Amino acid sequence: MELINGNEIATAIVAELKEEVSQLKGESPCITFIRVGEDPASVSYVNKKNKIAAEIGMIPKLELLPLDVSQADLFAKIDALNADPSVHGILIQAPLPSHIDEVETFRRVSPQKDVDGFHTENIGKICQEDETGFVACTPAGIMELLSRSSVPLNGKHVVVLGRSLIVGKPVALLAMQKQSWANATVTVCHSRTADLPSITKQADVLIAAIGKPEFVTKGMVKPGAVIIDVGINRVEDSSRKSGYRLVGDVNFAEVSPIASQITPVPGGVGPMTVAMLMKNTLKAFKLAQN
Amino acid sequence: MELINGNEIATAIVAELKEEVSQLKGESPCITFIRVGEDPASVSYVNKKNKIAAEIGMIPKLELLPLDVSQADLFAKIDALNADPSVHGILIQAPLPSHIDEVETFRRVSPQKDVDGFHTENIGKICQEDETGFVACTPAGIMELLSRSSVPLNGKHVVVLGRSLIVGKPVALLAMQKQSWANATVTVCHSRTADLPSITKQADVLIAAIGKPEFVTKGMVKPGAVIIDVGINRVEDSSRKSGYRLVGDVNFAEVSPIASQITPVPGGVGPMTVAMLMKNTLKAFKLAQN
Repeated sequence: MELINGNEIATAIVAELKEEVSQLKGESPCITFIRVGEDPASVSYVNKKNKIAAEIGMIPKLELLPLDVSQADLFAKIDALNADPSVHGILIQAPLPSHIDEVETFRRVSPQKDVDGFHTENIGKICQEDETGFVACTPAGIMELLSRSSVPLNGKHVVVLGRSLIVGKPVALLAMQKQSWANATVTVCHSRTADLPSITKQADVLIAAIGKPEFVTKGMVKPGAVIIDVGINRVEDSSRKSGYRLVGDVNFAEVSPIASQITPVPGGVGPMTVAMLMKNTLKAFKLAQN
Repeated sequence: MELINGNEIATAIVAELKEEVSQLKGESPCITFIRVGEDPASVSYVNKKNKIAAEIGMIPKLELLPLDVSQADLFAKIDALNADPSVHGILIQAPLPSHIDEVETFRRVSPQKDVDGFHTENIGKICQEDETGFVACTPAGIMELLSRSSVPLNGKHVVVLGRSLIVGKPVALLAMQKQSWANATVTVCHSRTADLPSITKQADVLIAAIGKPEFVTKGMVKPGAVIIDVGINRVEDSSRKSGYRLVGDVNFAEVSPIASQITPVPGGVGPMTVAMLMKNTLKAFKLAQN
């Protein structure tokens, strides 16, 4: 069994981006983060993205809005950033307060600056195999992990467990693209699937994204399969100071001995998302230059 | 074996739409067809759509453009129709001449008037399960055929053969939606799929959309499966006056005896597309009224 090391791969991508940005003449790529309120997880995520953007040589900007910001004021802020040619990427940190319509907020961002890939138009472009679009960071990160781990998809059976808009569906659409790096047969299964193990056991590549701790067990996996574990679940653990530990959607102890390659949790898909956000930002910058 | 009669189902839908339109007070739904050039198939398709729209009580309008129309002039025409509040649906008859960018043309139509469902935003809305969007007429017609033939999808395995943007991908996304009428496990397979029969034989519902005459044979189908044949292929037939006959992607003679339900070709999916176009037009009209 070989471990797919997301930390190492993400570090390599960040280094490549840093190198590429250092070669740019004139303007630098700018990503603006909109954070609403002071949710500690959001503060931490935005800080991390901010730090890596700076490390790459991009210009990170932060727009802080109060938790009780009106939808109109939030939209006005987005409109201003859409219109500002010095801003190339806009990331609105989720979750947003419940009085804000999240889908409409993501749709308000200019598709050309939507480095999070949540805009309806960018989702449609994945179906259209239109490479001018932005793919959301988690599915993009999964494809990058597979590619950099030399996992062939052509003609292989990729089984996606979970049909979410931000992971399951886009990664399924990517894996089935008529492209040399894709061309997989793709099955999407989920909570309603009858006889789930009979489906997951067919996977040459199994992508688990259902948010159920250690749901995928040995009996659900074909020996030699490649396992991508997207889940990040907290489970109680009294032996830890924090009182919990993070586990994936896959029972790593059981499954890893029979997998050919597997992502750990943490340190697998997780670290890739920030790297892909930066990659999208550089892409937005280049598209804006042309 | 039961035949899924697309002609009958389409006729029923047209009658329902006619009834609903007759109840409308004031303005009537208007669909405008843009036809470029005099391609005989396009002339015939547009005439048929025009006739059914009129039969339902809608206002069909026809915009004829010369084969050498410039992209700018075509776009100007689309812009004018987008801006005209008396036009609710716009259909641009494909194929377009090769000097016109088809994708950009479909994107030019206002998503709110895109009754063909080809706009990137409407494709994205299928992923988002956003019912304000328009689903392309063939995948919408397939779902309607299944629903009106009382084929349950919940927890069933739907196998889609073909990954085209206008059939395979959208119908896969519809069948996997988290909706009581969907909720299927979905596999998309295609020309690159290894051991195709082992995949198609798993299908409770097999949707064939690859454009290969009589490709699906008995050995590829599980007894009792529901078969939806999207293919319309001309094959030589010297016994016919025309010199050809139409066949689907499924070998009907072989497969129909073991299927529980099956669509014929012609008379299956084909007739549904015009009915769904009219349904989309009424929807566009209603959305515009609100």
